[in-house]
Amino acid sequence: MNMLSRKASHDSHGQDSSYFLGWQEYEKNPYHPIQNPTGIIQMGLAENQLLLPGNKRRKYINMLSFDLLKSWLRRNSDIVGMKKDGISVFRELALFQDYHGLPALKNELVDFMAKIRENGIKFASEKLVLTAGATPANEILMFCLADPGEAFILPTPYYPGFDRDLKWRTGVEIVPMHCSSSNGFRITSSALEQAYQQAQKLNLKIKGVLVTNPSNPLGITMTKTELNHLVDFAIDKNIHIISDEIYSGTVFDSPKFVSITEVVNERITTVNNNSITSIWNRIHIVYGFSKDLGIPGFRVGMIFSNNETVVAAATKMSSFGLVSSQTQYLVANLLKDKKFTCKHMEETQKRLKRRKEMLVSGLRNAGIRCLKSNAGLFCWVDMRHLLGSATTFEAEKELWMNILCKVGLNISPGSSCHCCEPGWFRVCFANMSEDTLEVAMRRIKAFADSITISTSVVRGSIAKWEN
Amino acid sequence: MNMLSRKASHDSHGQDSSYFLGWQEYEKNPYHPIQNPTGIIQMGLAENQLLLPGNKRRKYINMLSFDLLKSWLRRNSDIVGMKKDGISVFRELALFQDYHGLPALKNELVDFMAKIRENGIKFASEKLVLTAGATPANEILMFCLADPGEAFILPTPYYPGFDRDLKWRTGVEIVPMHCSSSNGFRITSSALEQAYQQAQKLNLKIKGVLVTNPSNPLGITMTKTELNHLVDFAIDKNIHIISDEIYSGTVFDSPKFVSITEVVNERITTVNNNSITSIWNRIHIVYGFSKDLGIPGFRVGMIFSNNETVVAAATKMSSFGLVSSQTQYLVANLLKDKKFTCKHMEETQKRLKRRKEMLVSGLRNAGIRCLKSNAGLFCWVDMRHLLGSATTFEAEKELWMNILCKVGLNISPGSSCHCCEPGWFRVCFANMSEDTLEVAMRRIKAFADSITISTSVVRGSIAKWEN
Repeated sequence: MNMLSRKASHDSHGQDSSYFLGWQEYEKNPYHPIQNPTGIIQMGLAENQLLLPGNKRRKYINMLSFDLLKSWLRRNSDIVGMKKDGISVFRELALFQDYHGLPALKNELVDFMAKIRENGIKFASEKLVLTAGATPANEILMFCLADPGEAFILPTPYYPGFDRDLKWRTGVEIVPMHCSSSNGFRITSSALEQAYQQAQKLNLKIKGVLVTNPSNPLGITMTKTELNHLVDFAIDKNIHIISDEIYSGTVFDSPKFVSITEVVNERITTVNNNSITSIWNRIHIVYGFSKDLGIPGFRVGMIFSNNETVVAAATKMSSFGLVSSQTQYLVANLLKDKKFTCKHMEETQKRLKRRKEMLVSGLRNAGIRCLKSNAGLFCWVDMRHLLGSATTFEAEKELWMNILCKVGLNISPGSSCHCCEPGWFRVCFANMSEDTLEVAMRRIKAFADSITISTSVVRGSIAKWEN
Repeated sequence: MNMLSRKASHDSHGQDSSYFLGWQEYEKNPYHPIQNPTGIIQMGLAENQLLLPGNKRRKYINMLSFDLLKSWLRRNSDIVGMKKDGISVFRELALFQDYHGLPALKNELVDFMAKIRENGIKFASEKLVLTAGATPANEILMFCLADPGEAFILPTPYYPGFDRDLKWRTGVEIVPMHCSSSNGFRITSSALEQAYQQAQKLNLKIKGVLVTNPSNPLGITMTKTELNHLVDFAIDKNIHIISDEIYSGTVFDSPKFVSITEVVNERITTVNNNSITSIWNRIHIVYGFSKDLGIPGFRVGMIFSNNETVVAAATKMSSFGLVSSQTQYLVANLLKDKKFTCKHMEETQKRLKRRKEMLVSGLRNAGIRCLKSNAGLFCWVDMRHLLGSATTFEAEKELWMNILCKVGLNISPGSSCHCCEPGWFRVCFANMSEDTLEVAMRRIKAFADSITISTSVVRGSIAKWEN
C-alpha cells in the first residue's frame, strides 16, 4: 500500500475527524463580535493568532505580543531589508544553501535555548540541526532512530498531529502509554513498563519514548521525578528519548521549566557511570519558533542532539526542508537583540498567565474544572460531569458536537489526543481577544447551567447564551 | 538497517566520492586571481555563483544576473520590508502556515511557468504544490508514487544527487536506462524497454520514469521525438512520468524548450482517446527557483500535477518542508513584476550563451569536444581521447584526479552521473568570472597538449600552465 492509499486511510482515521470537522464548521460560520456574534469561536488552535476567514483577504487579529515584534521590525528596517551595516547582503543570502545553516543563527540559538533553561544547560552550536519547523524535526528523528515497523512510546494524551508527523512517511509505529487523571496525567515507571510490555505482545520493537515538555495538550511542565523515571527507563531498555520542547518559552507560572537535558546533566555531575554518560547519546531535543515567538509561517525549527551520527544524518536530511536563508538572517538578528527577546518572553508569559486565569475562572464559574497548568496556550479541561451517565467516547463526541454546533465553541475532544478517559477537552485561549474569551465563557456557562438544571432537556435542545 | 546505517553506507558509495573529494580539495586550495592564482578552480557546481571559502566571512563573486536582482530589490524596498501599500504585512506573513501556500505566489507561478513554455501550456494554480526547493519536491513524488522496493527508471547520465534524494528515505530504487554517445545520449524506445526488462529480471516493479528536461548533466533540452517515446512507453506500461524542469528557464539557444506537458496536450488535441487522456493523471512536473532565478538559499520549489490525489497527498507532505512565508511574499512580488522577470531571463540566457561559447571554444582550442548543448549551466565534455589506451572507469578516475590535483580544475566525472561510457565529464561555467574561465581554459589546453605530445611523460609529470 503506497502513500496515496495510506493517505486516504489516514483521512478517514477517527482520531482526526474532529479536527477537520471542527475546522469545517468554524470556516462556515466564524465568530465576529459585530458581523457574526453568534458564530463559532475557534478554541482548537494552539497559536497566538486568530484567523478570520473571508473571501477576499484573510485577516488576523489580537495576537499576543505581536505588538512587540512589529515594533522591533520598525526599529530594524535594515535587517528586514537584508542589510548589514548599511550594505545589502541579499546576494550572500540568496546563494546560501549550506545545510549546516547560518553560523550567526546557530550561535544565537544556543544562547536563546540556554536562556529559556535559565542557563541550566548550554548546547553546542555544532550539535544543532536547522529544520523548516518542528514538524520535519520530529519526522527526521523518526527516520534516524527507527526502521519501518519499529515503534516509539508516547504518553497520552498527546498532540494529534503526531499520528501523521511521526508515522506517515517513516512507517514507524506509536505505542500509547496511558496516563490517568488519578495522578494528574503524570508519567510513572509502571505506565512506561506497561506500554513496553504491550509493545512486546504486539511484537513491536521499541526504539524510544517521545514526550512533549511542556505537554501539549496538558499545558504542564514535566517534574524532575517524571524526567528521572524517563531516564531510568531509557537506560534500562537501552532506548532513545525525544523531548519536543516547542512550548518551553511559554512557561508562565511555577514550577519552572526543566529540560530532560538538565536532569541528565545533573546526574552526570553526581553519578558518573557508563550508563549515565551513554544516555547522553540517546537524548534528542526538538524546538522551534512557531509557539514561543509566534512565527509559524517562517518555518524555523531545530534538533539538538549529542549523538554525532544523528546530527550528521539529520543535517543531510534537513536538505528536504531547509530554512529560507532570508528568514535565517532575520531570526538571527532578532535573537541577537537579547534585551528584546527577554522582554518579549516576559511579556508573552505575563499575557498568557492573565488569559489562562480568565479561562480558568470563567470555566470555574460554569462549574468546570481544569487541570492545574503552568505553560502552553491551552488548558486541559474536565467535562466528565457533563457526559451524563454514559462515560464513553461516544458521549464525549456527542458533547463535543453540541459544544461545536450549539454552543459555538470549537475545542478539541480528548479522544483526538488519544486520552484514555472520556470527558476531557483541550481548550486554547491565546488566539482570541479578551472580549471574545468572555463571550466564550458566557456561552459555556449557559450551556453547563442548562445541563445541570435538566439533563434530559439539554440533550435534545439548543443551549441559549448571551452575546 | 535504519537510516543511520544506511547513511554510513551512502557516504562510502563510490559514485559520490568524487563530489566530496573534489570539494575537499577545492576548500583546501581555492583559486583566487591574486591571493592564490595556482589554486583549484571550482567547475563542479551547477550554480550562478562562486563561493570563496575563508575563515572569517564567506565571499561570493561574479554571479550571473545578480546585478539585476539587486537593483530590483533596491527599487522595491517596501516589498523586502514586508509592506503592502505602505502598511506592514509582517503579522499576516509570520502567522501564515497554510500548506496550500500564498495564493498570490501560486498565481504568479502559473504565469511564470507559462511564460517559460511560451504559453504553450498553462497550469492551474490549484494543481501546484509548494515545497522548500526542488529536492523535497522530487522526494515527495517518490513517497507518493512508489512503495519501498519499487523503482523508477532514470536515463543516464543523471544528476548524482538523485541517488540520495530519491532513494534514501523512501526506499525506492533507481533503474538506470543507458543512453550512449552514439546518438548524443538521446532517449530511445529500445533503451527504455531494455531498462524495463532489466528491472523485471531484478524483480523490481517499475512505477515510472524520471527525466530532467533540460538535462543535468547534458545541458540539452529533450526533443519532441524523445518526449513522444516517453509518453508512448508510459502509456504502454501504465506508469508515471516525472519531469524535473528546474533548468527550463536557462535555455539559451535553439531548439526551444518543450515540456512533456506540451507534448501530451498536443496529442490530446489531435487524438482524443482514453489512454492519452488518462496519461495526464500520471505526469508530474518539478520546478524551482534555485537555477533560473539563482536563489537557492530561499528554498522555493514546487510540484505540478494533474492528479488530484497526488496533489492532495503532496500538499500534506509539504508540511515537512514549507517555504517561509516571508520568502513566499518576496518571490510573489518579484514574479508579479513581469517586465523584470522577462528582462532577467533574457539577460541570464544571453550571458549563459556567451559563457558557454567561451567554454566550448576554449576546449576546442585544447582539442576537446563538447556535446552540442542549448541549456543549463554546464557542458558535457568528451575527454575519451585523454584516457589513453585504457577506456575504463579507473582511467577516467585517474584523469579526473589529475585534472583536480595537477591541472587545478574541479569538474565532475561521468561515472558520478552513472554514465556508462568512461571519459565524459560535466564542466560548469556559470559560477565564475570570464577571467577565471580563461585561466581554466589555458590550464586545460596546456594539460591536453602535454598529453598529446607525450602520453608517457604526462601520466607521471605535473602539467604546466600560464596564469
